[in-house]
Amino acid sequence: MTASSLPHVVIVGAGFGGLRAARRFSRLPVQVTLIDRQNYHLFQPLLYQVATAGVSAGEIAYPVRAVLRRQRNARFLLAEVTDLDLSNRRLLTTAGEVRYDVLILAMGGQTNFFGNATLARHALTLKTLQDAERIRDHVLRLFEHASRESNVEKRRAMLTFAVAGGGPSGVEMAGALSELIHGVLKRDFPGFDLSIARVILLEAADRLLPAMPPALQQATLQALHAKGVEVWLNAPVESYDGTLIRLKDGRQIPSRTLIWVTGIRAAGLAERIPAPRASNGRIRVQPTLQVPGYPEVFVIGDAAYLEDEHGNPLPMVAPVALQQADWAVANVQCLLEGKPLLPFRYRDPGMMATIGRNQAVARLGRFRLRGFLAWLMWVVVHIFQLIGFRNRLAVMLNWAWDYFLYDRALRLIEHPEEKPEERQLLV
Amino acid sequence: MTASSLPHVVIVGAGFGGLRAARRFSRLPVQVTLIDRQNYHLFQPLLYQVATAGVSAGEIAYPVRAVLRRQRNARFLLAEVTDLDLSNRRLLTTAGEVRYDVLILAMGGQTNFFGNATLARHALTLKTLQDAERIRDHVLRLFEHASRESNVEKRRAMLTFAVAGGGPSGVEMAGALSELIHGVLKRDFPGFDLSIARVILLEAADRLLPAMPPALQQATLQALHAKGVEVWLNAPVESYDGTLIRLKDGRQIPSRTLIWVTGIRAAGLAERIPAPRASNGRIRVQPTLQVPGYPEVFVIGDAAYLEDEHGNPLPMVAPVALQQADWAVANVQCLLEGKPLLPFRYRDPGMMATIGRNQAVARLGRFRLRGFLAWLMWVVVHIFQLIGFRNRLAVMLNWAWDYFLYDRALRLIEHPEEKPEERQLLV
Repeated sequence: MTASSLPHVVIVGAGFGGLRAARRFSRLPVQVTLIDRQNYHLFQPLLYQVATAGVSAGEIAYPVRAVLRRQRNARFLLAEVTDLDLSNRRLLTTAGEVRYDVLILAMGGQTNFFGNATLARHALTLKTLQDAERIRDHVLRLFEHASRESNVEKRRAMLTFAVAGGGPSGVEMAGALSELIHGVLKRDFPGFDLSIARVILLEAADRLLPAMPPALQQATLQALHAKGVEVWLNAPVESYDGTLIRLKDGRQIPSRTLIWVTGIRAAGLAERIPAPRASNGRIRVQPTLQVPGYPEVFVIGDAAYLEDEHGNPLPMVAPVALQQADWAVANVQCLLEGKPLLPFRYRDPGMMATIGRNQAVARLGRFRLRGFLAWLMWVVVHIFQLIGFRNRLAVMLNWAWDYFLYDRALRLIEHPEEKPEERQLLV
Repeated sequence: MTASSLPHVVIVGAGFGGLRAARRFSRLPVQVTLIDRQNYHLFQPLLYQVATAGVSAGEIAYPVRAVLRRQRNARFLLAEVTDLDLSNRRLLTTAGEVRYDVLILAMGGQTNFFGNATLARHALTLKTLQDAERIRDHVLRLFEHASRESNVEKRRAMLTFAVAGGGPSGVEMAGALSELIHGVLKRDFPGFDLSIARVILLEAADRLLPAMPPALQQATLQALHAKGVEVWLNAPVESYDGTLIRLKDGRQIPSRTLIWVTGIRAAGLAERIPAPRASNGRIRVQPTLQVPGYPEVFVIGDAAYLEDEHGNPLPMVAPVALQQADWAVANVQCLLEGKPLLPFRYRDPGMMATIGRNQAVARLGRFRLRGFLAWLMWVVVHIFQLIGFRNRLAVMLNWAWDYFLYDRALRLIEHPEEKPEERQLLV
């Protein structure tokens, strides 16, 4: 059997799900093409660390080609998928047409502004490396501007940092931001009164970390307070114009920074698939992860919508994507061998969120952890998962340095200032 | 004596000269303001490593505020100087007007295209972090494009990388680029024939490294050949349109890449100074480093023009800037104390250039070194000079990894493709 006669499996997206699936195919008699518009896999759980100058971009990104280098049946294509033609089993990409026998869509999610154009235009997001570096540059630049601003109201608005979203990303972002300000920048600006600097975490619902048990929600609140973060519950955002945040209840916050980490929706490509979609644009796949009517097309990760046995939607998190990747590969094998496919079953490994330098909360099965021990576990789990030994070493070194000396050498403003009009609009 | 009654010394530029001068003032009764348009000091000798995915941006850049943190008489201002008003002892900056009693101009150099607009538009430069990341993204992207290009002539042009300039920067860039291609990318693109890939070093004169003794020039040529770099001597560039390099003698090289590291001229700000200028726009300072007619204004580093005792211009290199910084600070002290100022004398510490992973040439006084020993010395000297212990550790780790495993984890394409029209024009 020649290579060209093997079934051609095309995987769209080199995130957690797509990359895992590609590697899982290594010993199967298929030819794999992995497509991504970036040439690297991004370790998204640590993006907030890049945004707060804790680690550098290179430490949480790893070239896809380096991962696939030894896998003889896989190739990588740097391209953006522009359209799908499922009837003819082909993709249109910026690098031309790609035909497939089996397609696995793992294109992930994008920030969800719930149709709010003011947020799409003015809020900062945290989905890509560029997003994270933009937040870092923006925050550091505001400190430089504020340090020479004589008008106290303007200075106050420059030093008010709002984070919208009380999930793990929002909690992590707010905690790390507060530590950057009160631990590091305070010493960088010795003559400058930083007591007016505020970090406000805005959450629309009445509690943080909804997937956590109430005791850990309470612990998170306390830990954030201790770090100087103001937590506003029942505070849904109505609009933002770049200088003033308006809440739905009429409250207003003058602020030059709103970091929007509250919503994820399926990537735009999902709209091109002729299948029913759930809230957030996710594709309602069959329990086998197949697209209804197209047995050779699978969707995994953030782009796929499935419910657990209690009727709750599966969360848009890495463990779901990884498990679905394994499952999809197994089902592709069944499909190629003419065996019946099996329905996906999610095994919830638990949930963790860090709250700065030495605090975290974790739920693992029946166990609940908090404080330093939870933080230590979070560090070990995340460093262990980082692809590439060098990355692990570099991140560990950075964190050890950070932890013991409480400094952040990475607070560089790397990119020129940009006007909001120059930003891409993704409503 | 209150702080405000101390003489105000303003230093423009946080490169080697400016930063050294700022630190040297720490124990003198002056108030120092250091101005730079970046918030970091850049270790320029390693820029070519960022451009060839060897080290990351954060490893060769260090926040100015972190350097000055413990220096009570210094403050940092993130701003660009837009004009000088020497008669009234004031600067105009993007952060407003700044008045001074003593001014030290250390704004450095910029790429010199010698008035050639086609080069300014289409050639890549290597002066800033953004330049280096642009080269890295460009080279990696060309490999991605070439790997799926069916037309062999186009593929050949995509994989022909020209470096113009046979000084240390050009030699280092060409050597590292060849190693990136033949050592690392070859393994990233397993099914792709890279034998057509070429690195061509173009030098207008008849030899490389003109400041080196002939034996080391010869050794450099041999080492470059061994690494697969083609060296073209007597090959001045006439023009470049983004796809075709024309030499003055009529030869043509179809290439998508021309990295221009052959000329440095004084930064644009030098033109605003009412003083005679030498070639390359450098200001002809008095032997005391003062601007004629303005005893309170000093110029150091690449922006200053002085000749040695043989009538040769001092080179635009870091050791000159560092020694002039020390000298300027001493002369400012003389000026403030009413003592006579002393003429600058340059003590040449020698010169080094690396040619890839394990080759270098060095001239130190009467000593000449080449091969692995010279390379080891180059590594030690450069890591030792890196500001910040963390940076030293990180770079050492990266290099050790690189050296022993011959991999480069940093080959990320971070920034979106850009059109040449979007680039700034600096002829």
